[in-house]
Amino acid sequence: MIIDKLYEKINDTGHVCLGLDTDFEYVPAGFASKFDSKSEAVLEFNKKIIKATSNSVACYKVQIAYYEALGIEGMKAFSNTLKYIKETGNIAISDVKRGDIAKTAQMYARAHFEGDFETDFITINSYMGMDTLEPYFDYLKDKEKGLFVLIRTSNKGAPDIQNINTIEGENVYTVMGKKVQNVGKSFLGKCGYSSIGGVVGCTHTQEGKKLREELDSTFFLIPGYGAQGGGAEEVAVYLKNGNGGVVNSSRGILLAYKKQNNPENFDECAYNEVERMRKDILNAVKG
Amino acid sequence: MIIDKLYEKINDTGHVCLGLDTDFEYVPAGFASKFDSKSEAVLEFNKKIIKATSNSVACYKVQIAYYEALGIEGMKAFSNTLKYIKETGNIAISDVKRGDIAKTAQMYARAHFEGDFETDFITINSYMGMDTLEPYFDYLKDKEKGLFVLIRTSNKGAPDIQNINTIEGENVYTVMGKKVQNVGKSFLGKCGYSSIGGVVGCTHTQEGKKLREELDSTFFLIPGYGAQGGGAEEVAVYLKNGNGGVVNSSRGILLAYKKQNNPENFDECAYNEVERMRKDILNAVKG
Repeated sequence: MIIDKLYEKINDTGHVCLGLDTDFEYVPAGFASKFDSKSEAVLEFNKKIIKATSNSVACYKVQIAYYEALGIEGMKAFSNTLKYIKETGNIAISDVKRGDIAKTAQMYARAHFEGDFETDFITINSYMGMDTLEPYFDYLKDKEKGLFVLIRTSNKGAPDIQNINTIEGENVYTVMGKKVQNVGKSFLGKCGYSSIGGVVGCTHTQEGKKLREELDSTFFLIPGYGAQGGGAEEVAVYLKNGNGGVVNSSRGILLAYKKQNNPENFDECAYNEVERMRKDILNAVKG
Repeated sequence: MIIDKLYEKINDTGHVCLGLDTDFEYVPAGFASKFDSKSEAVLEFNKKIIKATSNSVACYKVQIAYYEALGIEGMKAFSNTLKYIKETGNIAISDVKRGDIAKTAQMYARAHFEGDFETDFITINSYMGMDTLEPYFDYLKDKEKGLFVLIRTSNKGAPDIQNINTIEGENVYTVMGKKVQNVGKSFLGKCGYSSIGGVVGCTHTQEGKKLREELDSTFFLIPGYGAQGGGAEEVAVYLKNGNGGVVNSSRGILLAYKKQNNPENFDECAYNEVERMRKDILNAVKG
């Protein structure tokens, strides 16, 4: 199970999920000028970041939107970024938030678990129901692939749907969480977590504690550290015995060179920031 | 507003939304053998279908999953299919079901409303909340673009989340519907409908009547005719005064040549099926 591989990597290196939400605007001008196209610059920027950080992160999350915005050439950069993550022995999460059913979802499975865009995990939006997950089951069992399903996000509009109170005294996101945990039970790794994880944004301590307790075999992908707010103390609530989740940071790492005023060594700056974040979370977890 | 253009096309030609969910397996072998690659065969198949049907349909819906499954080359076929729809003066809906926020959603807007993948409408999944819609507002106002947000789908798992009963005595999908209608009020066309429409699957008459009444300025994209079940009578419930929605059929049209046992003239067969469906719905609407 892919979740065991991720679990072990966390034990070795900590909880950092480095988000490659690489807008061309983030690439320092001096570096970008060496390449013929925006997409090439983005790819080479990613490679340098990956090379500098791969011993310090748990995994990389590649947000497809930033690549799609560059059209066909951007999709090539997306494909080649994923290939480089694989070549360097790292774990990739493609943040694609697909959510469809039947044959359409089969096509998404083929798109992201085989061929040009092959990755280890994809993110899923299950508003359409739990049959959004079925077409991926064979890949989870036979091909070491995994999913992260949106449960509770931390954006300001999240309560619009996710926090609707149900007649049974729950929230929509708790119903979603339980359903995801339930389906995930068929895909448990040796580590006790399922290869069907959940996206759970870092919101507040009370909520975090409850989710962590109720969804005890669900591994969490946790956005909301750094640029999006939320410190190590808050994040630690969503982890369990020092594992059970990865914590994403994108801009805080990719743009660390701005804070350190050192665009020429953007990769080294990213490494410094990953190390700081890694230790910050490890300390909070031990705390 | 793009919704006015779609509204007028419906008045001219009826309600058929032709779904280009073109799996390579659907392309007749004799035709496919003329091309060097799967993606080229898919594109040329689409072009012939579009050429044969463009005076009989309201619009085309291109399901990106089928193209993504063919990797980079598939994305080129997706791009070129959209270009051909535009060149021939037709309206395109890209069924991408994106649902993200802030800068990520801005990137999706750029990806699908500009450049290689430019289209007229995209489908959206707003489980993350109504802030999934904001980054598209400028495009709706200034660039004649539109959205269809998932409200109620017709797959078997749809009730898992969408039919959860809320403490206020509603369903999650009715809450979603009202929120979509409310946001859409800022983007009303002359026709009285908004450029933010909703995806509302054809389920049962009672539900359809209620949704049509409550969401009176929300234009519907209605899947669930033909291969996915649901006849013209059921579909008509979701329309209003002969307009207010388009009805999607994909496989029923693309594979019409199988039923008519005429793979060599798959485009003519598709045309025949579109004409049958078009008249079927028009008759039901006239009631």
